[in-house]
Amino acid sequence: MNNNRQNEDSALHVTNGVSSAHDGMTSQSRKRFTRKNKPQSVRHLYAGILEGSRLDLAKGITLIESILPNDKQAAQQLLLQLLPHSGNSIRIGITGVPGAGKSTFIEAFGLLLAQLGHKVAVLAIDPSSSITGGSILGDKTRMEELARHPSAFIRPSPTAGTLGGVHKKSRETMLLCEAAGYDVILIETVGVGQSETVVRGMVDFFLLLVLTGAGDELQGMKKGIMELVDGVVVHKADGDNLKLATKTVREYRQLLHFLQPSSPAWTTNALPVSSHQQTGLTEVWDMIQQFKELMIQTGFWKQRRQSQTKDWFHAMISDRLIDSFFSTPGKKEQVDTLEKALLANELTVSNAVECLFNE
Amino acid sequence: MNNNRQNEDSALHVTNGVSSAHDGMTSQSRKRFTRKNKPQSVRHLYAGILEGSRLDLAKGITLIESILPNDKQAAQQLLLQLLPHSGNSIRIGITGVPGAGKSTFIEAFGLLLAQLGHKVAVLAIDPSSSITGGSILGDKTRMEELARHPSAFIRPSPTAGTLGGVHKKSRETMLLCEAAGYDVILIETVGVGQSETVVRGMVDFFLLLVLTGAGDELQGMKKGIMELVDGVVVHKADGDNLKLATKTVREYRQLLHFLQPSSPAWTTNALPVSSHQQTGLTEVWDMIQQFKELMIQTGFWKQRRQSQTKDWFHAMISDRLIDSFFSTPGKKEQVDTLEKALLANELTVSNAVECLFNE
Repeated sequence: MNNNRQNEDSALHVTNGVSSAHDGMTSQSRKRFTRKNKPQSVRHLYAGILEGSRLDLAKGITLIESILPNDKQAAQQLLLQLLPHSGNSIRIGITGVPGAGKSTFIEAFGLLLAQLGHKVAVLAIDPSSSITGGSILGDKTRMEELARHPSAFIRPSPTAGTLGGVHKKSRETMLLCEAAGYDVILIETVGVGQSETVVRGMVDFFLLLVLTGAGDELQGMKKGIMELVDGVVVHKADGDNLKLATKTVREYRQLLHFLQPSSPAWTTNALPVSSHQQTGLTEVWDMIQQFKELMIQTGFWKQRRQSQTKDWFHAMISDRLIDSFFSTPGKKEQVDTLEKALLANELTVSNAVECLFNE
Repeated sequence: MNNNRQNEDSALHVTNGVSSAHDGMTSQSRKRFTRKNKPQSVRHLYAGILEGSRLDLAKGITLIESILPNDKQAAQQLLLQLLPHSGNSIRIGITGVPGAGKSTFIEAFGLLLAQLGHKVAVLAIDPSSSITGGSILGDKTRMEELARHPSAFIRPSPTAGTLGGVHKKSRETMLLCEAAGYDVILIETVGVGQSETVVRGMVDFFLLLVLTGAGDELQGMKKGIMELVDGVVVHKADGDNLKLATKTVREYRQLLHFLQPSSPAWTTNALPVSSHQQTGLTEVWDMIQQFKELMIQTGFWKQRRQSQTKDWFHAMISDRLIDSFFSTPGKKEQVDTLEKALLANELTVSNAVECLFNE
């Protein structure tokens, strides 16, 4: 068993939590892993993850993301065993337009938290990874220092099986990280499709990173984003940019004053941050801790997590139903044909739906 | 045939387009209508609707909303025949918190449009009608003058069969009104559930009615509503309230400056209106006409309507799949049991979904 394990480990090419393939496994190592996926592997992974082995955590996540039937069963066993050990973290979603400096911020913020004694897991949910094979790995210099830190674990998003731009197993991945002792989970997302709404439904605190120029900056973001977030960071508030950043912070505070806060009883605030000069990062962490205290105090912490679980369940049910409908042979083609007839004004939507279901 | 028709008409209790029951028919008259629902009825309705008969329009809508299998077939025939005559209107959604004066505004605005020579159809999508049996009819004094106007047609929402708080047949109802020659469709909604998003997906122009006090007023509205609307009316801008209303208009303009407009190339504006003193109403109509011109010019008018049709089709497909899943005997109970296990942390969402689909 020990020998087997070493063989597996060397085949996985996982270093410091950053795997060399976008999903943490080469196809060769995946085959090998699957072939050896016996009950003792689950027990072994279970123990390894609880002990905080980053390698076992990476392998556990790969198991959960696997679409092979044998792996699915093993993944369920692993999840059920680890479930009682999950939940003890603060889950923080981080969003912002490309160029806002999300990776730079996460590296600086993660390092600060690691220095404060926290264990930090970073999950990157980036739809662009389907093109670059994982943008984190596409750009090797991203989060280099954080990736080397013993208290950090970085996991890029897989390329397939998404729900509104978010991997269907991201929620379970988060639970695994928690079981491995990570008490801060940072989830990075970009504003494509429904990914922000989906990530908002997975996290306790949702942070928006912007640059100077309040209105311009929000161009390209999902509509209504300002009312989904619990905090705004005006990033790159340093050097020549400092004065303008301070003005932008004021503008965002004014804007937030009119809008509804994302969480009841909470006042969403904007803060200036320079990741480069490491200023403002402590203030962001203080804000998040105040948020957590208030939410626990008002009972909304537990309430939100419970309703998130329910919502996720129902989203997965719908997703499954729609998936299986469209994967019925001929259905997609039939929908396409009906769509054309709809746009040519030859059918109403009700007619089209009747055609689809009453044949 | 003619005799039959007169009998039917008298049984329907429809006066001036406002039906005496929330769905336009008593159960007795519905039975009678259904029994007599022969092909010639569809032909008759078709001709009557095209001629602009409000009574036939009301009966056509009732037919479309009917859940009886025979009616469904007749409804499809009617819709297919009328489809080429639909589409020639501007569809305007109107939303706002309860108390914003939506009915008062619609009455005053509708009367202005009728005076300008337009034919105005008002569809009220009000989830509260499931309790009051149609709030329009619950409060008999609402829109009394508009209801009496020969160029107006008012139809309250039915109580059942909704998609996010909007009746599944509201889109078809709109098409019928268009075929009957109504060139302005006003769709009233309140901010409950997903109704605003659904209505935004049905209309060309979406108008938000607010009162004074920008931030406070938005409390209770759906988050992100400001970025769904194409125009804001600060209502009750008269008397002692005028000064405060003017200030609120300024505040909304400032807020809108930072946010994304709902329609590309359009600048969402806020206008003060008094329905009581009939001030500002012409300005609202001018704004909507400018909007239409710009949208047609940029090509977004057609593009939006086409994507709305597609989105509605896909929403109806999902809805149908989810409906039929949950109406399978025992499924709802199974989901409830799994939900309890989820909240007790005995299962992960993936486990629960597997349980549901792989038994």
